[in-house]
Amino acid sequence: MNNRNILENELLQVEAEELVHHIGEVIRIHGSIYKIRKMSDFAFVLLRTKRSVVQGVYSAECSEFPMESLTEESTVIFTAKVVAEERSKVGYELLLLKVEILSMPTESTPIVINQKKVDTSIENLLNFRPITLRNEKERAIFKLQEGIGRAFREFLYGENFTEVHTPKIVAAGAEGGANIFKLDYFGKEAFLAQSPQFYKQMMVGVFERVFEIAPVFRAEKHDTSRHLNEYTSVDFEMGFITGFEEIMDMEERMLTFMLAYLQEHYSKELELLKVQLPVIEKIPRVRFLEAKEMVSKAYGREIKDYEDFEPEEEKLLSELIKKQFGSEFVFVTRYPSKKRPFYAMESKENPEETLSFDLLFRGLEVTTGGQRIHGYEEQVAKLKRLGMTVELFESYLMMHKHGMPPHGGMGLGLERLTAKLLGFENVRYATLFPRDINRLTP
Amino acid sequence: MNNRNILENELLQVEAEELVHHIGEVIRIHGSIYKIRKMSDFAFVLLRTKRSVVQGVYSAECSEFPMESLTEESTVIFTAKVVAEERSKVGYELLLLKVEILSMPTESTPIVINQKKVDTSIENLLNFRPITLRNEKERAIFKLQEGIGRAFREFLYGENFTEVHTPKIVAAGAEGGANIFKLDYFGKEAFLAQSPQFYKQMMVGVFERVFEIAPVFRAEKHDTSRHLNEYTSVDFEMGFITGFEEIMDMEERMLTFMLAYLQEHYSKELELLKVQLPVIEKIPRVRFLEAKEMVSKAYGREIKDYEDFEPEEEKLLSELIKKQFGSEFVFVTRYPSKKRPFYAMESKENPEETLSFDLLFRGLEVTTGGQRIHGYEEQVAKLKRLGMTVELFESYLMMHKHGMPPHGGMGLGLERLTAKLLGFENVRYATLFPRDINRLTP
Repeated sequence: MNNRNILENELLQVEAEELVHHIGEVIRIHGSIYKIRKMSDFAFVLLRTKRSVVQGVYSAECSEFPMESLTEESTVIFTAKVVAEERSKVGYELLLLKVEILSMPTESTPIVINQKKVDTSIENLLNFRPITLRNEKERAIFKLQEGIGRAFREFLYGENFTEVHTPKIVAAGAEGGANIFKLDYFGKEAFLAQSPQFYKQMMVGVFERVFEIAPVFRAEKHDTSRHLNEYTSVDFEMGFITGFEEIMDMEERMLTFMLAYLQEHYSKELELLKVQLPVIEKIPRVRFLEAKEMVSKAYGREIKDYEDFEPEEEKLLSELIKKQFGSEFVFVTRYPSKKRPFYAMESKENPEETLSFDLLFRGLEVTTGGQRIHGYEEQVAKLKRLGMTVELFESYLMMHKHGMPPHGGMGLGLERLTAKLLGFENVRYATLFPRDINRLTP
Repeated sequence: MNNRNILENELLQVEAEELVHHIGEVIRIHGSIYKIRKMSDFAFVLLRTKRSVVQGVYSAECSEFPMESLTEESTVIFTAKVVAEERSKVGYELLLLKVEILSMPTESTPIVINQKKVDTSIENLLNFRPITLRNEKERAIFKLQEGIGRAFREFLYGENFTEVHTPKIVAAGAEGGANIFKLDYFGKEAFLAQSPQFYKQMMVGVFERVFEIAPVFRAEKHDTSRHLNEYTSVDFEMGFITGFEEIMDMEERMLTFMLAYLQEHYSKELELLKVQLPVIEKIPRVRFLEAKEMVSKAYGREIKDYEDFEPEEEKLLSELIKKQFGSEFVFVTRYPSKKRPFYAMESKENPEETLSFDLLFRGLEVTTGGQRIHGYEEQVAKLKRLGMTVELFESYLMMHKHGMPPHGGMGLGLERLTAKLLGFENVRYATLFPRDINRLTP
């Protein structure tokens, strides 16, 4: 070996993704030892870096350190030669020459994390989240989730939306109802925001188009595979619309942009997770009542509830739409007024229905949106009709009083979308540190 | 006029920023009427659009609608001819031909919002936030704030940081102490996260470099010009550092990138607000104790507290550094152990001081950062030494137990940075909807 005289710190520190450009060179690379596979006279040593797992080879002949000095989950800096290797998918591997050990674990992991899949219960997967996320596939889920949010932002900036940061501690809930977390705010009662609804509407009066990607909080007691008590909401709101259809148009374009963005920038994770991305041509739009009837007819189900969907109906509708239109998304439009919040605009022709929509994706609601009431008198009248106390909404109604354009928007659950995109049945698999009625840690 | 026969909806709908390319054309444009200035036989009508205020001219001769139909804060679509106008800064104005009124306010605003400045108390400014933000300069503050966050994200993506979403409802506080909001979580005690500290550290074990821009919550009872009870924290955390200086290096580059980004993409708002952006060459780094002594010497002040800065000292230090080095930023390094949290790494040579820093900008602390303890035994020993209950940190210590690289990071208050960048003495001016001990609405 003629590498002995090279001063380690003079060597190029290389990112895993750049290795392919350094074949034949001696470099330095750092990371965590993901896996050691001992063979008869050598060992494969997988190094986990920021976004890759790189194969290294330890050989007694070339490596200037004892094999025993390496343990899984140690953090190290290797001095290594990048050698071409035809049998490797990436076309090279690292011949390990020297190692500098930065830290070592004090115990081996309680769960095996370096197999293709973390083979354990969802309970364990979540209980040991700081460790199980180190699995190559587990972390890829959240790299993709980054990509989804990043794509949404980039799209919305391009459409002249302004990003805002609205408060999460609020004096009144947006959606009303019981599923709101209360807290003591210096002796006053306060709540955690269920959505940025009020604020994003106010900001339409300021910037015309706004968005926010931030946590929202729902004190729902449901312990299901699709409910979280805290999740990341992608919200946009836009003014000067001529109808609620424009909101669906915008979301459709946003989703299309996102899918192309993932293909372009996150193909590594898409491949690793074997993701089947949906194709968006034109998302079918079906009226709520028609949708209920379609499902009833196709599956011979009696309609029990004319005001809302049962989860099973959402699944069947998605199935049906896919069969009939080839689309894995479907907009269900014009939900009954009774099931929508006080700010939902009603149809002029039929006040029983609202100018609103849900987006179902692979059987699950991922978005709720619609046009909002922008007239002051109309909003006050509706509040009164619903028996709500107008005075409580004084700061909310300020915008209506002083002029608002026709507007509407939508909120999308980032974890739900991620889960469905990756084919998970439980939204927790796509939530970094889930919060549910039974889980507050880690 | 030969425009009468054009069908309105066949006309091009133009964004304000594109008008300059349509001089001589008849177009349609929507927005809110910001201001009407009546002259003898015509009127100036300012239209507020997403990001601009555009000057329109009403003339009895050309405009095919009565002047009285226009009121301030109505939302409208104008059909207008774009005419060259030398006296205008932008080189054109709109000759208003037709108007379609979409909505009208029911009352005029309680505060004048369409002068150069909203001339009222900070109390009123904040009480009427949904309205006062419609002022051209007020909203420009938050457009710039968008730019700051956007620049940070772009920089961090470029440095291979992964964006994460960590929970805001937590079982234990990161910083400890009393200033934490409690809430009832289905009968269990829970808290609002004071910072994403624990989670971003865990994620260093997963992605090596991570960041988050999200709300944090501090139940501080201070009612000062620099405290908020909820603010937007820009947090990053990075692994495989060789010293805490690398964190300062990264922040320095992030800030430099941001300043250039604002120049390039937000010059409109910088001009409107007459912002004097600071110049970063190399941010001076001064040890905590030296900094105390510098101030003491230069201003003849007795040092009363050897463990922390008084706000007045931070101001004087900034003043001094600017005089001596020409820098409006200064890193104060190696804060006393007593004043830093349990996870702060101490100096090997002097355990009384930590490998940490604050960044002061124009007299105010805007960032706290430092290297963290990454060894399990070291962290457990320090917890014990501080008399803390190790068992309470079980899920936090999981990462240390199973191997962590040397790492550190920082948190930056987005509102404080925005305020200081714009020369505001009170951070509330740079907070969209501030939360303080006395304010929970709007």
